Amino acid sequence: MKFCAECGAPVVLRTPQDDHRERYVCTNCASIHYQNPKIIVGCIPEWEDGRILLCRRAIEPRHGLWTLPAGFMENGETTWQGAARETLEEANARVKILDLYAVYNLAYINQVQLLFRATLLDLDFSPGIESLEVQLFAEHEIPWDTLAFRPICSTLENFFADRKTGDFKLRSGDLEPPVRK
Amino acid sequence: MKFCAECGAPVVLRTPQDDHRERYVCTNCASIHYQNPKIIVGCIPEWEDGRILLCRRAIEPRHGLWTLPAGFMENGETTWQGAARETLEEANARVKILDLYAVYNLAYINQVQLLFRATLLDLDFSPGIESLEVQLFAEHEIPWDTLAFRPICSTLENFFADRKTGDFKLRSGDLEPPVRK
Repeated sequence: MKFCAECGAPVVLRTPQDDHRERYVCTNCASIHYQNPKIIVGCIPEWEDGRILLCRRAIEPRHGLWTLPAGFMENGETTWQGAARETLEEANARVKILDLYAVYNLAYINQVQLLFRATLLDLDFSPGIESLEVQLFAEHEIPWDTLAFRPICSTLENFFADRKTGDFKLRSGDLEPPVRK
Repeated sequence: MKFCAECGAPVVLRTPQDDHRERYVCTNCASIHYQNPKIIVGCIPEWEDGRILLCRRAIEPRHGLWTLPAGFMENGETTWQGAARETLEEANARVKILDLYAVYNLAYINQVQLLFRATLLDLDFSPGIESLEVQLFAEHEIPWDTLAFRPICSTLENFFADRKTGDFKLRSGDLEPPVRK
């Protein structure tokens, strides 16, 4: 951030009175521009035979890899409405959102990911503009080696384990930056 | 938002290609400025005798009313780190954060509130700059008529009910705008 969104004057980083950290503050109108984490919402769409709907990404990052439908929560919606909207956008699929199942903190990129269990309502799905293909996978068919993100991998592992016991516990975790090889 | 945070030129509201909704887009450098919901993080600090620590607000909104320690999550922290930080800032109190207990969607103000159960670690607490006073309350002492926010009221009601059974279920809800009398 270099300029004030309210008046267009340059901003500087300084700690406002009664605050604990540096913010972008306007040199002209003194507006304080806070920056906060963003929420990713998504779901685990389960068909009645137990298969899970995954999307192969048509966009970066992780173009070509498989993921659960998920994306940035928008203003004016709830977390579960956002998860359903992302599923519609990425897979043209309708779901009934169930319980919150996983919460991941990715502090190094200022994200919180919220993933819900969901029931896929029909088989009329197809790739949205951000997907190359969408497909149902049984547990033994999951493309573990070509999943796009670590929280997706953990969430699917936990989901299949919990499904065997019938006891779905809320899962949470903190992710560190990935080690680049 | 009126001006581009990157170059200072005016922005306009329009729907970018491949997008579904209007965004603030710069008329000069074409930067897209997304606006997304913010996360409120807080906790239910419980002392070993079962009393709960509440803070009386020294700031608007709801100046003078009682609330659980909570506030805007910051970049670079996890949800539970944010909840502990807010407790330290508002009540100078140290807590051990336990499970996520409540998720509230306040879509009309673009907020998601995440409240954790927590153990208060010692009795060395005092009002932070945003609190008039901080005090421990047993269940029968909770100032129900002067609580600041509806999610705080629901969360405390649920907490005391669940504590009787020992089974703390994740609670969630969607709040509509309050009716002004």
